[in-house]
Amino acid sequence: MSFRDTLDFLLYDWLNVETLTARERFADHSRETFTSVFDTCERIAREKFVPFNRLADTEEPHFDGERVVQPQAAHDAAKAFVESGMLAAAQDAEMGGMQLPCVIEMAANSFFSKASIGLGGGAMLTSGNANLLMAHGTEAQKDVFAKNEFSGRFFGTMCLSEPQAGSSLSDIVTRAVPDGEGAGSDPLGPRYRLRGNKMWISNGEHELAENIVHLVLAKIPGSDGQLVPGTKGISLFIVPKKLVDTDGALTGERNDVALAGLNHKLGYRGIPNTLLNFGEGKYPVRGGAGAIGYLVGRPGDGLRNMFHMMNEARIGVGLGATMLGYAGFEASLDYARQRPQGRPVAVGGKDASRPQVPIVQHADVRRMLLAQKAYCEGAMALALQCAHLVDEHHTGDAAAAAEAGLLLDMLTPIAKSWPSEWCLEANSLAIQVLGGYGYTRDYPVEQYWRDNRLNMIHEGTHGIQGLDLLGRKVVMDGGRGFALLASRVEATIARAKARPALAPFAESLAGTWAALAKATQAAWSTGVPEEALANATPYLQAFGHTALAWVWLDVALTAHAAPDSDTARGLRQAAQFFFRYELPKVPAWLAVVESRDDTCRQMQEAWF
Amino acid sequence: MSFRDTLDFLLYDWLNVETLTARERFADHSRETFTSVFDTCERIAREKFVPFNRLADTEEPHFDGERVVQPQAAHDAAKAFVESGMLAAAQDAEMGGMQLPCVIEMAANSFFSKASIGLGGGAMLTSGNANLLMAHGTEAQKDVFAKNEFSGRFFGTMCLSEPQAGSSLSDIVTRAVPDGEGAGSDPLGPRYRLRGNKMWISNGEHELAENIVHLVLAKIPGSDGQLVPGTKGISLFIVPKKLVDTDGALTGERNDVALAGLNHKLGYRGIPNTLLNFGEGKYPVRGGAGAIGYLVGRPGDGLRNMFHMMNEARIGVGLGATMLGYAGFEASLDYARQRPQGRPVAVGGKDASRPQVPIVQHADVRRMLLAQKAYCEGAMALALQCAHLVDEHHTGDAAAAAEAGLLLDMLTPIAKSWPSEWCLEANSLAIQVLGGYGYTRDYPVEQYWRDNRLNMIHEGTHGIQGLDLLGRKVVMDGGRGFALLASRVEATIARAKARPALAPFAESLAGTWAALAKATQAAWSTGVPEEALANATPYLQAFGHTALAWVWLDVALTAHAAPDSDTARGLRQAAQFFFRYELPKVPAWLAVVESRDDTCRQMQEAWF
Repeated sequence: MSFRDTLDFLLYDWLNVETLTARERFADHSRETFTSVFDTCERIAREKFVPFNRLADTEEPHFDGERVVQPQAAHDAAKAFVESGMLAAAQDAEMGGMQLPCVIEMAANSFFSKASIGLGGGAMLTSGNANLLMAHGTEAQKDVFAKNEFSGRFFGTMCLSEPQAGSSLSDIVTRAVPDGEGAGSDPLGPRYRLRGNKMWISNGEHELAENIVHLVLAKIPGSDGQLVPGTKGISLFIVPKKLVDTDGALTGERNDVALAGLNHKLGYRGIPNTLLNFGEGKYPVRGGAGAIGYLVGRPGDGLRNMFHMMNEARIGVGLGATMLGYAGFEASLDYARQRPQGRPVAVGGKDASRPQVPIVQHADVRRMLLAQKAYCEGAMALALQCAHLVDEHHTGDAAAAAEAGLLLDMLTPIAKSWPSEWCLEANSLAIQVLGGYGYTRDYPVEQYWRDNRLNMIHEGTHGIQGLDLLGRKVVMDGGRGFALLASRVEATIARAKARPALAPFAESLAGTWAALAKATQAAWSTGVPEEALANATPYLQAFGHTALAWVWLDVALTAHAAPDSDTARGLRQAAQFFFRYELPKVPAWLAVVESRDDTCRQMQEAWF
Repeated sequence: MSFRDTLDFLLYDWLNVETLTARERFADHSRETFTSVFDTCERIAREKFVPFNRLADTEEPHFDGERVVQPQAAHDAAKAFVESGMLAAAQDAEMGGMQLPCVIEMAANSFFSKASIGLGGGAMLTSGNANLLMAHGTEAQKDVFAKNEFSGRFFGTMCLSEPQAGSSLSDIVTRAVPDGEGAGSDPLGPRYRLRGNKMWISNGEHELAENIVHLVLAKIPGSDGQLVPGTKGISLFIVPKKLVDTDGALTGERNDVALAGLNHKLGYRGIPNTLLNFGEGKYPVRGGAGAIGYLVGRPGDGLRNMFHMMNEARIGVGLGATMLGYAGFEASLDYARQRPQGRPVAVGGKDASRPQVPIVQHADVRRMLLAQKAYCEGAMALALQCAHLVDEHHTGDAAAAAEAGLLLDMLTPIAKSWPSEWCLEANSLAIQVLGGYGYTRDYPVEQYWRDNRLNMIHEGTHGIQGLDLLGRKVVMDGGRGFALLASRVEATIARAKARPALAPFAESLAGTWAALAKATQAAWSTGVPEEALANATPYLQAFGHTALAWVWLDVALTAHAAPDSDTARGLRQAAQFFFRYELPKVPAWLAVVESRDDTCRQMQEAWF
């Protein structure tokens, strides 16, 4: 079976995404139009991305003093992506979009991520940026900025972190002050001057598009000139690299945004990662220093507006991690089928006079391949399910939409964190399958592993996801999200119990879910956040494995009901692997959560 | 506490290595002489290794057509190491050695591994090579080759793998045929001509020493000209890059050994890794093609002789992995103490107006640091214990020596594999502590992670270690090794039960050990190797975590009995972490072993 077979199975057999075409918004679509989108993306990825993935790593972006230089392949890949129309895939037809469901858009983008996460990532940032403007911008902001991003004329960034404020966004110190006369009546939005430094900005400087639209978090000082501590004082601004008029045409003025440096990364090198200085006066504009920016939404709503798109962004990160895992799975499977080495173990030892066998025949190699399959296809199923919930949230009826939103809040920390951890492990297993060859740069697997290591860090670290899940999501609204998810899990368990081959797995999941619920309660039983949250990361891991077991059980139900095929058998075997080899890992993580283990809290700095 | 404090505690308080000085071989030594060796190594590592670790990565070895070029720092580091006398640390005084115990030699070498595994690794290969000649070579071979390696005039390699024979050494096809007239009466040993290709040869070509002494596995054809299948036909040869006379002086003849290529690795770049062609005629010598080699030991004993030193070599790999982990632990601890970010969680949320705190104060960061400490110091304790067993094996009375040998056989697969897996995980946690900064090449942690990924591959992959442990070690001699190890574990448990603070951990270990023994029996209960060994890797992981729990319990006993200090408290807390967070992982691995789970065996290639 192939990636495409698996994708089709999950979309059409498992999620029944074709039923979405009955909805008004997607009425012009059919399985055929989806197929055509996938064909196009698969082809572009094969032609413009796959062959240049290594090049994007070895020729990392550099600054020649004036411009960020990237290989021609990066330009070609960006151009091909833009021409595919995928930047506006989910947008209204009147915005130049295809009105595709989110689940189809994400599935289509996965071809690019699998082919080259570095070459594909920048374009996806742009649609995230433009989507945010569609949600919170004025009509002018949508027309001038978002529309030009959807068409690929402009590319976008998200500027949150600062050198002293990474995970702790409440500590940002970039300032925005009204830009003198007429500041309040600019047709592009209330006009400010920004000053500050932003760190870890992907695609912060490049030559792949005509302009760069920075979305920047900054604080507007109070009447005393002081910044408000915490996240409440944060506002959101559009800061274009080059100023534009109300038609979106470049005015010829360079804004006061300067590249302060490129970060030299372990992997993910296809995308320039930058430190940007806003408003330091390197490019004085309209009479002085200060980067010109236009307020988006209301003052003080910046973080909330930025986080409006956070679920989709985080699902996207998870799917990117998944596709890196999948790329390694494919490479190591291909190698294992071709590489002769060793002989089967047997009673009486091995017969050295017989020819060597392909290593895929060794049980331990199959274990490593099956683990990769279980991690990557499970993560893929979860990501697609979450994307489908986004569609449900946007186009379902009121009750379904609300439920989908609540489920998304619960599942997003998992959809982001779980693939970041386990598809990275998949990449390590891919290296191991190739042995010494896997450790060389002549094979692609070591790069996937390096690229994937980023995903536990950006868009909210693993630790932050754990705090979000245990500290907010499971307790919000009296635990309504947790209860809703539980009802979905129970429904799957009930269906699986009726099928003898799956009944034992249903029992396992029921037991594990009950243990998770008990540990969740025990964690919060004293009401002391330090005690509850000291083991938020093990909780995230336990929750993740349990949620994936649920996804696998649900997929297995479909695979058992489907006509017999290699695809269905492979999914059933992967589900079995997950229940036998992976789900039993959960009790170890839950034990410390349930006991509110204080080993780490009590550890003193001097003892390290 | 510092690395040195931990090392001293483990050596003197826990292992009581000072008592070794009562033995005749070590009679000239004392704690003071050990300290002096450590001081020297620590200083050289600080001055000649630490500052150049990144350089060894960025300026990887390259071939200029004639020579392998490495940065000056590699030459300086090798020279300093040679001058330290560490190459001959464990040798007899009459060989120019220091007669240090193995445990002190390994501890001393750990300073270099921690400082720069790449710059330090080559020298250690040399002493392994020379040790092998001391065990199996003739007097002339010892004098001409080993002695010049101990003095650092020559460096050594081990040439086992071939492009088509990595883990499966029985499939090597390098041939050795007697070298014409006088072949049998060469003073350097029976003389042969070798022809074949060797892959993955570390330090196979370089300019750091006057000559390179290759130890090469090859097959001597039978009278029918055919190679004997399997490992029985393998013999061991000395193949010097440059020929030497019986005084060890270079004769001016270049042997027919040619560099076919350098491997470009993910990490560990300080050591050139080569593909070597033996005898292809690139450097005809003494009238023709064929690399001249001298047989070591008897024909057909090659693999056995090569593996004679395998325990020590594998413990060395494990200790190298451990030191990479430790280097990351130190770097991330240092960062965590200095980096302000965020505020403590508390009832009612965080007060954003208060200053940020160093991240070491966050429980999740402490968890990541404590996990690193538990992995690295546990692995260090195990490696030192194994090295101590080597001393016992060599210098203890007959009964003790035999027991030590048996324990070494049991523990070596763990000493090699466990740090390769878990100190790699430590390196990943170090990256995570640093967040985005950890993902950049401006900090050392990403390099440690890349370097460490090799250790699960070379010197016997993880899969090979698992087969060795479950397929050979636990069943050999009717399970005598397993029973002996069990008695040692039980002794520790009995002592710990008498101490209230440790009694719960003693109970946990007793339960886990019993489960391990039960699963071991169940795995072999059908007597079918395919069934027993299908889950040899999960068995290795379960055995490893259990063995480490035993080591930690034993260390904790000493730490509880010792005078109160930060060092002792830190070790006690790390032990507690291991029992609370790590040991509970064992049942998940054992479950598939005990049930002889066939999920992987039954997986069909077409289903992937």
